[in-house]
Amino acid sequence: MKLEGKVLVAQGGGPTAVINQSLVGAVLESRKFPQVTKVYGAVHGVAGIIKEDFLDLTQETTHNLEQVALTPSSALFSTRDKPDEKYCKEIFNVLKAHDIRYFFYIGGNDSVDTVRIVNENARLSDYEFRAIHIPKTIDNDLVINDHTPGYGSAAKFVAQAFTGINLDVRALPGVYIGVVMGRHAGFLTAASSIAQKYPDDGPHLIYLPERPFNIEKYLEDVKRIYEKYGRCVIAVSEGICDEEGNPIVTKLLNNVEKDEFGNVQLSGTGALGDLLANYIKKNLGIKRVRTDTFGYLQRSFFGCVSDVDQHEAREVGEKAAQFAIWHNLDGSITIHRTGDYSVDYQLTNLEEVAGKTKHMPDEFINSEGNNVTEAFRHYVLPLLGSGLQQAHRLRAPKVPKLLKKE
Amino acid sequence: MKLEGKVLVAQGGGPTAVINQSLVGAVLESRKFPQVTKVYGAVHGVAGIIKEDFLDLTQETTHNLEQVALTPSSALFSTRDKPDEKYCKEIFNVLKAHDIRYFFYIGGNDSVDTVRIVNENARLSDYEFRAIHIPKTIDNDLVINDHTPGYGSAAKFVAQAFTGINLDVRALPGVYIGVVMGRHAGFLTAASSIAQKYPDDGPHLIYLPERPFNIEKYLEDVKRIYEKYGRCVIAVSEGICDEEGNPIVTKLLNNVEKDEFGNVQLSGTGALGDLLANYIKKNLGIKRVRTDTFGYLQRSFFGCVSDVDQHEAREVGEKAAQFAIWHNLDGSITIHRTGDYSVDYQLTNLEEVAGKTKHMPDEFINSEGNNVTEAFRHYVLPLLGSGLQQAHRLRAPKVPKLLKKE
Repeated sequence: MKLEGKVLVAQGGGPTAVINQSLVGAVLESRKFPQVTKVYGAVHGVAGIIKEDFLDLTQETTHNLEQVALTPSSALFSTRDKPDEKYCKEIFNVLKAHDIRYFFYIGGNDSVDTVRIVNENARLSDYEFRAIHIPKTIDNDLVINDHTPGYGSAAKFVAQAFTGINLDVRALPGVYIGVVMGRHAGFLTAASSIAQKYPDDGPHLIYLPERPFNIEKYLEDVKRIYEKYGRCVIAVSEGICDEEGNPIVTKLLNNVEKDEFGNVQLSGTGALGDLLANYIKKNLGIKRVRTDTFGYLQRSFFGCVSDVDQHEAREVGEKAAQFAIWHNLDGSITIHRTGDYSVDYQLTNLEEVAGKTKHMPDEFINSEGNNVTEAFRHYVLPLLGSGLQQAHRLRAPKVPKLLKKE
Repeated sequence: MKLEGKVLVAQGGGPTAVINQSLVGAVLESRKFPQVTKVYGAVHGVAGIIKEDFLDLTQETTHNLEQVALTPSSALFSTRDKPDEKYCKEIFNVLKAHDIRYFFYIGGNDSVDTVRIVNENARLSDYEFRAIHIPKTIDNDLVINDHTPGYGSAAKFVAQAFTGINLDVRALPGVYIGVVMGRHAGFLTAASSIAQKYPDDGPHLIYLPERPFNIEKYLEDVKRIYEKYGRCVIAVSEGICDEEGNPIVTKLLNNVEKDEFGNVQLSGTGALGDLLANYIKKNLGIKRVRTDTFGYLQRSFFGCVSDVDQHEAREVGEKAAQFAIWHNLDGSITIHRTGDYSVDYQLTNLEEVAGKTKHMPDEFINSEGNNVTEAFRHYVLPLLGSGLQQAHRLRAPKVPKLLKKE
């Protein structure tokens, strides 16, 4: 029995470089089914649903949709709203009023819970309704999934940034600290390891939220590397915490505040990098210490997209439409690695994915907790897609000195 | 009369994405001349010359050189040394000892002066010697030149970053401030204007070192844009100064210090962005204000290179070898625009280029001093090369509301 009615697609949370592939995959696939009367898009995610702020995507040309698919950042706009039971009830009322029978929500783990509660509302009201969560997050922190759409492209950006930084710091030696997004999971920061091509290549140290960050150990690490190579490149997750789970940015600011800074606000995005840099300068006496906070560049940069990520983001959108409209099923689309490299998509119960955070497994982190393992590099490499550029070095022999003794 | 002897190539100052194209152009072209006995490369620029730290690039394979050409950041490493007369005398002594008859120095305007003084030393010693400066700088601030190698690729990075940021801030509205490199010239920051595709696209405000920055005017500008579009994307040069020529980062820190911060150090790279953001938060009460400092990402990012920039960087290296070895001339290679778009290379007297800084001409800046003109966009676009990606939007009609009145 075919369920006739409208489809609604929405996007939530932080944008990614490929989130519109999932949107376009869901829209184009939905438009193929005769029982689908219209395909709507909610503007600004769940916030737009409450306001009945819908676009009629049935009237978009296929060609423009294909162009939008290649454009980073949520074309339907996004929201940071995290609906509670009452909010979800309102969502359901709007969906029902518009005869929406299929709801596809592209988002992270908060979005899964929204899909679950709205679906529960429909069930209790005996309203025939299918709801599917389509995964996306640059943090790569959705459970069950081998990885999530959006991560591969952000990881490619981080990898290519550190490949360049590594060469830059070889040319003009010093200490460099790059602060990468990731409050609870270190996958994105860990992708910096792809820059490690030659044995002395950085990042020489990688600090992740999965391991407690000890400021004295950090100092020792940097000192050792700097003495060995005359330079040190460091990748650090914005979310690193101490043994008690307090974010380092807070802790250091408190220390420094008492020491010399005064009432510094926590709001500055460059704060963690600057503090880690100042700590090195003050304690190791190294003059050239530089820091960058990658910030928003890493999630929407135009022109650094993984084709594997594009492809998978498209397919999770298409699969959502297929599972819901063809098979009459609810759930969350999950990505499973089936080969080296191949994936398959499954439908997982929403409860299994909702509200949980995946962390870097132990086998991906070295025993010292200051770098990643070969296992991680093997895991991440295929996700970056084709065309990853390689750094090359001069290998010419040295010329004997004439004026000075060697 | 052919001048027989060795060639020495060196790289100075900040790395660029295409600086190795110039290196490889000079090396491969030099190797074609029978009067060239060897081609050396100085490690770490002029500092390496003093130490006689040379690589014998005659022994590099052409294939590896081609791979190095595609790799960003100075393959011979760089230096921040700015040689004085005494330093240049030492350089000359080393060059003479090694029978180096041709010297090619790839660098910014400081490097021109080094080439000039070393050449003067040779002339005074009646040592037959040719010295050529090969231009490079992401700042695009060399006089005589229409533009300089390295700028196009950095500009492409900035353009693509702001294209993504613009989409990101549309999806999750607020105020965004991106701080771009450029202490005295605003060319790199101005390249953000390429993101302005649709009439409401950012960056809505572009602040350059060529115009005094007034903090109250800035506040008014942001308020006006934010009220009009519900968001505001800002590109700002790190080198913006007040009416008296004092860098804003110093001035604001002083203000804020007296006000609430205490003894904040100037060293933090995120300082300017954070201060401009805090000023908006405090005075306009806008909650979501984000800032990124593009930092080192913009000059060595791997995978965002302009093919026009690559091509020209290669040719200025080749032309240096041709002017010196074929024509027995000294000078600085300069790039001249001859069509829309085509260029020609000339040899300019070192004195005309040395130590001078090119600024954005008035016709490239709008009358309010807070954006660029169409003339600038026309100037910069061809330098970004082919394959610049375009953002696309959904154009679907709105769906009438059923539950709520419009």
